[in-house]
Amino acid sequence: MDSSPRRVPLPPPRSTCAKLKTRMKETFFPDDPFRRFNGKPPGTKWLLGAQFLFPILEWAPTYSFSLLKADLVSGLTIASLAIPQASERVHITYFMLFNVYSLLAEGFNAKQGISYAGLANLPPIIGLYSSFIPPLVYAVLGSSRDLAVGPVSIASLIMGSMLRQAVSPSSSPSLFLQLAFTSTFFAGLFQAALGILRLGFIIDYLSKATLVGFMGGAAIIVSLQQLKGLLGIVHFSQQMALVPVMSSVFHETREWSWQTVIMGICFLGLLLLARHISTRKPKLFWVSAGAPLASVIISTLLVFLFQAQKHGISVIGELKRGLNSPSWDKLLFHSFYLGTTVKIGLITGIVSLAEGVAVGRTFAALKGYKVDGNKEMMAIGIMNIVGSCTSCYITTGAFSRSAVNHNAGCKTAMSNIVMSMTVMVTLLFLMPLFIYTPNVVLAAIIITAVVGLIDITAAYHIWKMDKMDFLVCICAFLGVIFISVEEGLAIAVGLSILRILLQITRPKMVIQGNIPGTDIYRNLNHYKEATRVPGFLILAVEAPINFANATYVDERISRWIEEEKEKHITFQFVILDLSAVSAIDTSGISFFMELKKTAEKEGLKLAFINPVGEVMEKLQRANGLHNLFGPEYFYLTTGEAIISLSSLSKESRQGSKGTSGISNL
Amino acid sequence: MDSSPRRVPLPPPRSTCAKLKTRMKETFFPDDPFRRFNGKPPGTKWLLGAQFLFPILEWAPTYSFSLLKADLVSGLTIASLAIPQASERVHITYFMLFNVYSLLAEGFNAKQGISYAGLANLPPIIGLYSSFIPPLVYAVLGSSRDLAVGPVSIASLIMGSMLRQAVSPSSSPSLFLQLAFTSTFFAGLFQAALGILRLGFIIDYLSKATLVGFMGGAAIIVSLQQLKGLLGIVHFSQQMALVPVMSSVFHETREWSWQTVIMGICFLGLLLLARHISTRKPKLFWVSAGAPLASVIISTLLVFLFQAQKHGISVIGELKRGLNSPSWDKLLFHSFYLGTTVKIGLITGIVSLAEGVAVGRTFAALKGYKVDGNKEMMAIGIMNIVGSCTSCYITTGAFSRSAVNHNAGCKTAMSNIVMSMTVMVTLLFLMPLFIYTPNVVLAAIIITAVVGLIDITAAYHIWKMDKMDFLVCICAFLGVIFISVEEGLAIAVGLSILRILLQITRPKMVIQGNIPGTDIYRNLNHYKEATRVPGFLILAVEAPINFANATYVDERISRWIEEEKEKHITFQFVILDLSAVSAIDTSGISFFMELKKTAEKEGLKLAFINPVGEVMEKLQRANGLHNLFGPEYFYLTTGEAIISLSSLSKESRQGSKGTSGISNL
Repeated sequence: MDSSPRRVPLPPPRSTCAKLKTRMKETFFPDDPFRRFNGKPPGTKWLLGAQFLFPILEWAPTYSFSLLKADLVSGLTIASLAIPQASERVHITYFMLFNVYSLLAEGFNAKQGISYAGLANLPPIIGLYSSFIPPLVYAVLGSSRDLAVGPVSIASLIMGSMLRQAVSPSSSPSLFLQLAFTSTFFAGLFQAALGILRLGFIIDYLSKATLVGFMGGAAIIVSLQQLKGLLGIVHFSQQMALVPVMSSVFHETREWSWQTVIMGICFLGLLLLARHISTRKPKLFWVSAGAPLASVIISTLLVFLFQAQKHGISVIGELKRGLNSPSWDKLLFHSFYLGTTVKIGLITGIVSLAEGVAVGRTFAALKGYKVDGNKEMMAIGIMNIVGSCTSCYITTGAFSRSAVNHNAGCKTAMSNIVMSMTVMVTLLFLMPLFIYTPNVVLAAIIITAVVGLIDITAAYHIWKMDKMDFLVCICAFLGVIFISVEEGLAIAVGLSILRILLQITRPKMVIQGNIPGTDIYRNLNHYKEATRVPGFLILAVEAPINFANATYVDERISRWIEEEKEKHITFQFVILDLSAVSAIDTSGISFFMELKKTAEKEGLKLAFINPVGEVMEKLQRANGLHNLFGPEYFYLTTGEAIISLSSLSKESRQGSKGTSGISNL
Repeated sequence: MDSSPRRVPLPPPRSTCAKLKTRMKETFFPDDPFRRFNGKPPGTKWLLGAQFLFPILEWAPTYSFSLLKADLVSGLTIASLAIPQASERVHITYFMLFNVYSLLAEGFNAKQGISYAGLANLPPIIGLYSSFIPPLVYAVLGSSRDLAVGPVSIASLIMGSMLRQAVSPSSSPSLFLQLAFTSTFFAGLFQAALGILRLGFIIDYLSKATLVGFMGGAAIIVSLQQLKGLLGIVHFSQQMALVPVMSSVFHETREWSWQTVIMGICFLGLLLLARHISTRKPKLFWVSAGAPLASVIISTLLVFLFQAQKHGISVIGELKRGLNSPSWDKLLFHSFYLGTTVKIGLITGIVSLAEGVAVGRTFAALKGYKVDGNKEMMAIGIMNIVGSCTSCYITTGAFSRSAVNHNAGCKTAMSNIVMSMTVMVTLLFLMPLFIYTPNVVLAAIIITAVVGLIDITAAYHIWKMDKMDFLVCICAFLGVIFISVEEGLAIAVGLSILRILLQITRPKMVIQGNIPGTDIYRNLNHYKEATRVPGFLILAVEAPINFANATYVDERISRWIEEEKEKHITFQFVILDLSAVSAIDTSGISFFMELKKTAEKEGLKLAFINPVGEVMEKLQRANGLHNLFGPEYFYLTTGEAIISLSSLSKESRQGSKGTSGISNL
């Protein structure tokens, strides 16, 4: 080793512009989507561009019969899931609408006259519609090969509950539906915009802890809402929080219908049993997958045979056969509702993106291909914009359905097209069969579906791993139950961000010691074998130093110096390990100026270990303005600093006072 | 060195409760205010407690004549500053009120009848009042020995402009004053609460960049507002943004009074000249300090001699002599104004705290004593609560005045008491002298004062040091000028926080190489001499891994692996330096799970360098749930990992396939 210690160099100079470019690239294009175009001839670039916009062009030209066979099987499998699921999920949002349709079937339309004329043409099963058009759009635009598209529980939950707060689905069903389409339109717009503006990282702010708590809370609220159908109550609270719902249930005990209650409990028991079987034996997944459809068929037959609709059991009533009708004329941009629909669109859009992108990434990682998050957002966004114009509500890549798709061996997005076609056949020919389906069975199906969203295992794991994450989870849960869906979500996201800010505001600082027999310096509290180096106070800061923590870091260091003095530990050197200080700002510079003052006042000599390029550069620039620290303050490693400083100190003690910079020791 | 590498141990186990306690202590009690009580007898504890609450008890018992002499000199010096400054600053807020007083003097009160009877008793120079009572309170409660207390420009600016938006000072002056007292009351309440709740770090979020931009913008707006007085315009915009003010100026050119304009320009020139002299020769600080008072005296004499008030120059009019009257009955908690006053209180409270605490800390650091930030907040808060009940508006420790206090050799808070007494004498005996003071001179004084707040040097330094901080500064500046004071501030603070969040969301990750002839591994882009280690990809993450960045870090690592492959660099090991990863959460754990999958798929072996205690602990807990990484994945230094992995790799190549864990290479 040289006798003189190595100096920390300045990083190679780069212009502000070049730095900005790198920063922008890492912020907005971390996946480097244009890499594939590099060095390709123009013709190929065009083709690659088209394939980027329409991933179907990548796989369609080489599509083979063997691929079709695989996709056909998986497509039919997910269709068999999609049909009951679609109604299951749409009910979460539109359960009230079904009651409206039964009203309609009973002549409500005739009584209300022309003001509700448009309503008569409304498609009844929005959920099935949403499993027909959006998958076709996604098959053309989406880059995932495994994502099965359709309505999902969590977005349905939010949309349903937030819409209910704005407008009553039973008193103005047409408006309710219009607002649902409009919200879906805005959701699509936000999703596409996030993708185009490369702001996809926003969905990362919905951490797993937030989503677990949120879904648990929402599931409980929706289950309680279903008590309306399960108990046959007619007058029910429009609110979504726990207290009004429960007071509704027990306030209207006169309205409970015993026939409905019995039927509900039976089917709920059956459905939960089916779920239980499938959970215990994953091979029997078809049991729980088929149970909702079976329940619908059986209950419909029962009602039909016993004419139960005349004995207090309410039924869906007549449903219109046919495909999606256009709905762009139903989009409502009236300023009175604009705020509501934009808000619902924003929240459902982000939440459903979070699910869709996460599911796409998961399966892509499993099969070893890449999904471009921002590209996916554009695909999902356009899918929802198209959906909102064709009587569909919000859709995304559904986790359960995609898992089944993957297990059934899908190869390309063609499986979505197969599913879509199967749903089309259902819409065209099988709709009249639902006339006698009792509402109570739909309530039971919804309860079974949403109860599955309460993920206690995940919450337990979060508790084991990280108490603060668990707090976020619990806040989301309680917020949703006791306040409202969006506020619960906002509290959880706010807490998560607050936690990050607190980590920055109060960064960890540790005191280091030498691990005997080595040149390694580590946290004294972590490594028991580490020992203090006499004469030195070795500190490490583990966060960027900026306006939020410069004061704290300064005070903390002063306190350490004081505490050491109180313990009568003498030292002449303070070594500050800056390895983990990834950035500083102007307040960080002020911190260094303050630190220098403090050290001079206490008669201590400072040394900085391993500052990163940016910190080095800024301190250098500060030198130009304030003449702070020369290169003799910076060392590559703690070991070198200690050797160099000890020898300096010895020199100055042995003679020639005042020649070195530390003569004041 | 041993042949087997050292393992990273788990940190000593601590309960969640103990961790929470440490975290809480570092968050809320980083200055450890109770340390002084440790191990003291109960009697001493009581005394120390009383001294903690009333720092006057610390210095009063040993107060000596020599100290008094020093404090007397400095107290009189700051009083000579305080009297013109107080009116200067109060004018910033209350300029309109002076016009009101002139109206009053002209019989406005008689016309309006009893509804304004209370107003006649209103004290005219709130600024002097605010230099009388609050310093007395601070002298008892404050822990700084150098802070000179009184109204400050920036808080006056905000309060004045925000109040003007809520209520017109010319059409309802009594309400205006009531709201000012109420806002001051709330400001004091917030300040004291922040201190008691130990949330003092909130003021750190007002970074220097924010304050520089904010003050510059506010100064320009207030200067433009003064064009009303300077040009003698009667009808003027109530708004504070640039556009309405300038349109007022040029819309009412008919109202310009040439006598006023000439007088204004002359005095403005004189005042600016005085400022310029003091800036160039700091010894002549008394020139600019005395200039406002001199201008007031000269202009008053001029008006009196030439009876100029009859020739288009408006004057202050009669001012009431006497001390502060109680104002607790003027506090207005009516729900209609509650939102406004709470908002104004919050913003002015935080901004004035930021100034007061920063000034206190600066001078404490210079003299080598400690100021307890949270304790100071309580003192300033109580001072403002008392002030709001005694006809004072918001006060805090003023930078310029404290600097003069310090330079004049103050020893204790007694200098504040001396200043307060001098102000009292002024209030009691010198008030009638202001009858003929022209408003135009006050406008000139205000312009001179606020122009000094435009700190172009500081802005230039910020630009040199940190472009992003400069952006924050410019946004605050433009936001204040074109939108409003509070929105400009909110934009700047939001941007600062966004920057921190972006740093977390897109953490820096670097690729490291070996510095030849050493065991040191550093960033390849920073250290030119560093070289790649063949067969290894050495990466370092420089931020905690959490929900906001887990996806990015994962994708970035995958991209690096891909890029290296594209460059045909072969490697079998990925080494991840976790030294700077100060914390992980549940998403961080998921990241490690994903990383393991990616590595296995690519046939790469992972190694982690120097994880901190918390990370080690959480990965250990994750092992309990998912069996992720054994201790053989963790190394203390990159060097050890490379030696150990190379030898393993050699072993597995030389023979005995499948015995070591890396047989798949």
